[in-house]
Amino acid sequence: ERTAPTVAVPQVTICRRETFCAAHRMNSDKLSPEENVRTFGKCNGKHGHGHNYVVEVMLRGPVDPVTGMVCSFDSVKQWLQAVIVQIDHKNIDLDIAYFASVVSTAENIAVWFWNELRVSMAGNAHLLHCVRLYETEKQFVEYYGSTSHL
Amino acid sequence: ERTAPTVAVPQVTICRRETFCAAHRMNSDKLSPEENVRTFGKCNGKHGHGHNYVVEVMLRGPVDPVTGMVCSFDSVKQWLQAVIVQIDHKNIDLDIAYFASVVSTAENIAVWFWNELRVSMAGNAHLLHCVRLYETEKQFVEYYGSTSHL
Amino acid sequence: ERTAPTVAVPQVTICRRETFCAAHRMNSDKLSPEENVRTFGKCNGKHGHGHNYVVEVMLRGPVDPVTGMVCSFDSVKQWLQAVIVQIDHKNIDLDIAYFASVVSTAENIAVWFWNELRVSMAGNAHLLHCVRLYETEKQFVEYYGSTSHL
Amino acid sequence: ERTAPTVAVPQVTICRRETFCAAHRMNSDKLSPEENVRTFGKCNGKHGHGHNYVVEVMLRGPVDPVTGMVCSFDSVKQWLQAVIVQIDHKNIDLDIAYFASVVSTAENIAVWFWNELRVSMAGNAHLLHCVRLYETEKQFVEYYGSTSHL
Amino acid sequence: ERTAPTVAVPQVTICRRETFCAAHRMNSDKLSPEENVRTFGKCNGKHGHGHNYVVEVMLRGPVDPVTGMVCSFDSVKQWLQAVIVQIDHKNIDLDIAYFASVVSTAENIAVWFWNELRVSMAGNAHLLHCVRLYETEKQFVEYYGSTSHL
Amino acid sequence: ERTAPTVAVPQVTICRRETFCAAHRMNSDKLSPEENVRTFGKCNGKHGHGHNYVVEVMLRGPVDPVTGMVCSFDSVKQWLQAVIVQIDHKNIDLDIAYFASVVSTAENIAVWFWNELRVSMAGNAHLLHCVRLYETEKQFVEYYGSTSHL
Repeated sequence: ERTAPTVAVPQVTICRRETFCAAHRMNSDKLSPEENVRTFGKCNGKHGHGHNYVVEVMLRGPVDPVTGMVCSFDSVKQWLQAVIVQIDHKNIDLDIAYFASVVSTAENIAVWFWNELRVSMAGNAHLLHCVRLYETEKQFVEYYGSTSHL
Repeated sequence: ERTAPTVAVPQVTICRRETFCAAHRMNSDKLSPEENVRTFGKCNGKHGHGHNYVVEVMLRGPVDPVTGMVCSFDSVKQWLQAVIVQIDHKNIDLDIAYFASVVSTAENIAVWFWNELRVSMAGNAHLLHCVRLYETEKQFVEYYGSTSHL
Repeated sequence: ERTAPTVAVPQVTICRRETFCAAHRMNSDKLSPEENVRTFGKCNGKHGHGHNYVVEVMLRGPVDPVTGMVCSFDSVKQWLQAVIVQIDHKNIDLDIAYFASVVSTAENIAVWFWNELRVSMAGNAHLLHCVRLYETEKQFVEYYGSTSHL
Repeated sequence: ERTAPTVAVPQVTICRRETFCAAHRMNSDKLSPEENVRTFGKCNGKHGHGHNYVVEVMLRGPVDPVTGMVCSFDSVKQWLQAVIVQIDHKNIDLDIAYFASVVSTAENIAVWFWNELRVSMAGNAHLLHCVRLYETEKQFVEYYGSTSHL
Repeated sequence: ERTAPTVAVPQVTICRRETFCAAHRMNSDKLSPEENVRTFGKCNGKHGHGHNYVVEVMLRGPVDPVTGMVCSFDSVKQWLQAVIVQIDHKNIDLDIAYFASVVSTAENIAVWFWNELRVSMAGNAHLLHCVRLYETEKQFVEYYGSTSHL
Repeated sequence: ERTAPTVAVPQVTICRRETFCAAHRMNSDKLSPEENVRTFGKCNGKHGHGHNYVVEVMLRGPVDPVTGMVCSFDSVKQWLQAVIVQIDHKNIDLDIAYFASVVSTAENIAVWFWNELRVSMAGNAHLLHCVRLYETEKQFVEYYGSTSHL
């Protein structure tokens, strides 16, 4: 839909940061109770715990010569909010069907965000570059999508 | 145990910051389900949510002329850890007896911290000056103890 | 509206943090152009500059024994938003009548916030305790209202 | 100028962070007033707004075996300051010629920084690896230069 | 020097934040080597360690009706820099005479800052309200001066 | 040890952040005193200075379908602590043999961390992806290991 530029158009990564609050418990139905304790330690506590998660979503693409934007931050915010509304102020394991059988590790939540964002971004999904998810101030993960699968 | 200074000894406030992760749900047994939803909104979600809480504990007292300290930060850390171990990676409402009938608002958690710290600090409890509790990046409370009661 | 407690009710300070973006220029119509340059330096630049301001509003009052709150953070957010909407993504000097003849220093913006908040808080204005305003990461001001006037 | 090492020299990325304050308005002379409002929303406000921008400049190169540095942080600071002095406490659209006809989006400001840094770095410009620009706490962009053009 | 206002002039606290890097070792010449180890733990390490200190200096006074300022942030910066230059990139114990016989705890460094600031502020020293000193992200102290002596 | 997945397993980067405090002095035994002053400026101060360093260690690998983790954050923490214990609350130049003849720049400390982590990670060393080291709030370096040697 954008005519090919005669000069090089810069490719830029843009990032939007949001936060959400959720409860979860790390527990795998493929492990015994003892193995779960050994694997997840205090994160396997019976009644769960929770986090103020921070999610940073990165899009990568050419800068539109008319608007000066890869795409508007308002759009990114809306695509992101469409996913966050499913997880904010929720219990990840009990309130999101996907996590009924998938352990709610930061890794798996990042992959879930990636997949949900591709849905909410629809025709712009090709711009999605990275999902960075902070579980605490000291721990975060990054997922760059299926092109980085092993 | 400290001999009276012939010159004025400076009084200093010292602060130690720690973090903990916990799940909770804001729900009052003195309110009907409808009133709870109206009062607490999404914080009343059935399966709860959670936070990375930040607690800052402030002590205030004279600087010891020999050690140059109000008291050692290691002591403050230990007094604080004795309280944090009760709440970290827990469900506040289900795992702490005090919150069975007390709503786990930031205000009430700060008051609980104050009371528990006075126990863990024992003979040093008179030094306790303030408990500041961050629930999120955007919300925190401060409690200065019973001397500031109405 | 709340019955007098027979036991002491803890008094707690609660704080809500928000951000807004605005342009301004420091220039006093009571000073000559030369005095303005001498007084305000690069902040007096002809076409103005701008900031990501951070405002922290503190309320102080008794914790309601039923809800466990001084008042809901959602209310604080709404009272604060009613003020922020007047200044966010604006030119402070040109878009807010108050600053037509008042220099838009951090001090004066904090006082303006205090006064506007008292209006938006209406019957709850007595709870207002402090307005803290960050102009940059390195500079902020605090205003505790008319009770702290000289 | 550096003799070829007989053993592998580690290649390291070094980053320097600085801040600056500026006003701007997002408005494209290629769009009608209505299109500008639709495209840029509140960022198109008539009298502009502003930000505390954060710029992180990354250089990438071999670690000098004598000094232990890719290059001194003082040099990076000076190269960066030579650019920042043009934009700090300015109105980007009115005070920088480049932005007379280019919309002052974060994307375009990052590209401008890259180009200006290549000038101030002169013979060291080949070390320039990335410009990261934060417009707010929640939004930033990254530009890796012409080698990443589409 | 300022004429008495006929209406109340708001009193505001202003704060400037700066950072500095220094080495130190916690060791009291009033204690034996064993007592020093017991009192200061790893902070008593033989060759010392160091910190990126953050100092926040608060001034409190009436807002000048002409300039809208308690005093200019540039002045505060200069008064503060006159003190920081003595400690930045230094070994506190070996390079500052005051600390030859005073343990370089955060408490004592805050008191030292207070005293040095009163000198650099000269006729404005009455405005000095508080020195807050961060030793690490998790530990800070506050000193409000001799009026808060015991 | 993990059976080959029949569907693509996502590859995720996980990061753990820790802090440590250390003293150092930037001085090269391959330079004259005058050259050292010219090269390192105030960082060459005779008695040294210090920092609150922040280290972020990134691992990259497939997400285990059973545990949902690349590897447990507790393991990363332990591997990292095994290195930090050598440098925390130490004088880098005097207490770590490696830096007797290597200048303790951020670049060289990052490379040292990489090498030490490969030892502490033993059979998991292939997961090590990046060491990011903050010397101050304004300066950091990143090292991606020998695969990025020139």
